[in-house]
Amino acid sequence: MIIKIFTTGGTIDKIYFDAKSEFQVGEPQIAEVLTEANVTFAFEVESVLRKDSLDMTDDDRQLIRTHVEQDACERILVTHGTDTMIQTALALREIPGKTIVLTGAMQPARLRVSDAFFNIGFAIAAAQLMPPGVYIAMNGEIFDPRFARKNVAKHQFETITQS
Amino acid sequence: MIIKIFTTGGTIDKIYFDAKSEFQVGEPQIAEVLTEANVTFAFEVESVLRKDSLDMTDDDRQLIRTHVEQDACERILVTHGTDTMIQTALALREIPGKTIVLTGAMQPARLRVSDAFFNIGFAIAAAQLMPPGVYIAMNGEIFDPRFARKNVAKHQFETITQS
Amino acid sequence: MIIKIFTTGGTIDKIYFDAKSEFQVGEPQIAEVLTEANVTFAFEVESVLRKDSLDMTDDDRQLIRTHVEQDACERILVTHGTDTMIQTALALREIPGKTIVLTGAMQPARLRVSDAFFNIGFAIAAAQLMPPGVYIAMNGEIFDPRFARKNVAKHQFETITQS
Amino acid sequence: MIIKIFTTGGTIDKIYFDAKSEFQVGEPQIAEVLTEANVTFAFEVESVLRKDSLDMTDDDRQLIRTHVEQDACERILVTHGTDTMIQTALALREIPGKTIVLTGAMQPARLRVSDAFFNIGFAIAAAQLMPPGVYIAMNGEIFDPRFARKNVAKHQFETITQS
Repeated sequence: MIIKIFTTGGTIDKIYFDAKSEFQVGEPQIAEVLTEANVTFAFEVESVLRKDSLDMTDDDRQLIRTHVEQDACERILVTHGTDTMIQTALALREIPGKTIVLTGAMQPARLRVSDAFFNIGFAIAAAQLMPPGVYIAMNGEIFDPRFARKNVAKHQFETITQS
Repeated sequence: MIIKIFTTGGTIDKIYFDAKSEFQVGEPQIAEVLTEANVTFAFEVESVLRKDSLDMTDDDRQLIRTHVEQDACERILVTHGTDTMIQTALALREIPGKTIVLTGAMQPARLRVSDAFFNIGFAIAAAQLMPPGVYIAMNGEIFDPRFARKNVAKHQFETITQS
Repeated sequence: MIIKIFTTGGTIDKIYFDAKSEFQVGEPQIAEVLTEANVTFAFEVESVLRKDSLDMTDDDRQLIRTHVEQDACERILVTHGTDTMIQTALALREIPGKTIVLTGAMQPARLRVSDAFFNIGFAIAAAQLMPPGVYIAMNGEIFDPRFARKNVAKHQFETITQS
Repeated sequence: MIIKIFTTGGTIDKIYFDAKSEFQVGEPQIAEVLTEANVTFAFEVESVLRKDSLDMTDDDRQLIRTHVEQDACERILVTHGTDTMIQTALALREIPGKTIVLTGAMQPARLRVSDAFFNIGFAIAAAQLMPPGVYIAMNGEIFDPRFARKNVAKHQFETITQS
């Protein structure tokens, strides 16, 4: 079983550019994270986009979907900005036979204190263990994107309670 | 669903004691790791032992088993040193109705470069998703302790290939 | 001998605000840095401004000068963004009897890899040891602001060679 | 002006060896620290010893002295364990024309929280600015080794008050 990892940018990959005096999406961090964790499972990393998820368009989401659909792997991890992670997850529904897990971080992986390493570890296990479908793996929980939202004030995803 | 976390020591919890000029097992780090990851699932942490796993005795393993058996939670995470993690896992077999996951780290969580955060994220997902049984969650893989060993030279767990 | 530390913002104090999806100047980091270094000398910290140094005005520089002039301490450290650190240093010239050292960082102190801790250590020693005057302490060197510039491409300060 | 850096081991260079389940003195960390700080001054690093300073002998101190005496550089930094840093400093007295600064760390440089980066920055400035003599640069202060001691309980160096 190979896990295919598509990177699309987001906070997890933000690095600080002194020349511009600001943080921007940089090189994908996930290969470094997996090397640091000394993992033994088989994986491939492919960079699809390098965007803050607030800037993602419908065309971008279609591009991600095409990559997922055409890939031979059945177990897919997508690293993504948190602000529109749910929209992208919804755009990845109904791809038969594939387990698709989206994760990201509220704080860049390069910070001394970040949720990135935990989230990637959590999401990798979810990608290995969940049945086909599309999932958000954040804050130590697995969410169905149809019933999830980001609570910006709390820096957390949460389940929408139905009335 | 509450995840019960029993800490027993091991490298993951090692801190540097300047007065003794050496690293020793210190306060459990997992609560700090989970706070840093801003998790939303329910969990309880209980410190059972604070030992380098090379120093664990059969009595220690029985003590851990008693804690697991008597706890009301069905989903259990045990943080443990890697050198005898498999022996402890074997001592936790055949506890009906409980999913028990053991994890740890090859490098202390307080180091700038450590596998601890990834491993805990990975193990938490395994504890949520696996059926009843006892498992080793290390290096991004889930192992059956009956068929696993630590490859000390590679700092990795691996499956024993049967002949 | 007390060292008075005036913080004005800059990269050294930048933290990541998930809600705005960007890094901005946050709480001054220097007290945390000095605590982590377990220092024993006497110091006071006062926050004067919280600005990216590209946004600093002449009024801001006058405000910093007034704080330095009116303070009883003879040894002053100013943490400051690197882009206009030299202009502020020039605005602090000719304050008799005071040793004034400016430092900052090319990478935020909260990153896992940052020049902030080294720079603050270096600048503290310069503030203790240099005669009255105003100095830039960056990249492990002490510069006279009249003959220094920031080489943006190299992320370094350098001495202007006179022809 | 070139700064010559002699490394002798100590806590600052300790790394965690999983195979031995303990921390031991590893590769000198100072080149990595100086690279991370992006310094521009000229320096050379030479590894003389790799010892916990509790294990240093009189012969070791003589070896360090010989290296310092025979080196062409006038400005010398010695990284050293803190427990016997003062003894080594006393063994380096009366080397005419040389400024010799000893520093180290109470916590290994590879920890997420360490005094190593601050101490090296501080000691580099001291090596550049102090007149000939031998000094301890720790906890943000410069000590004369004849009147200093390590307060083990406080993890700090302090001046011996004469009665």
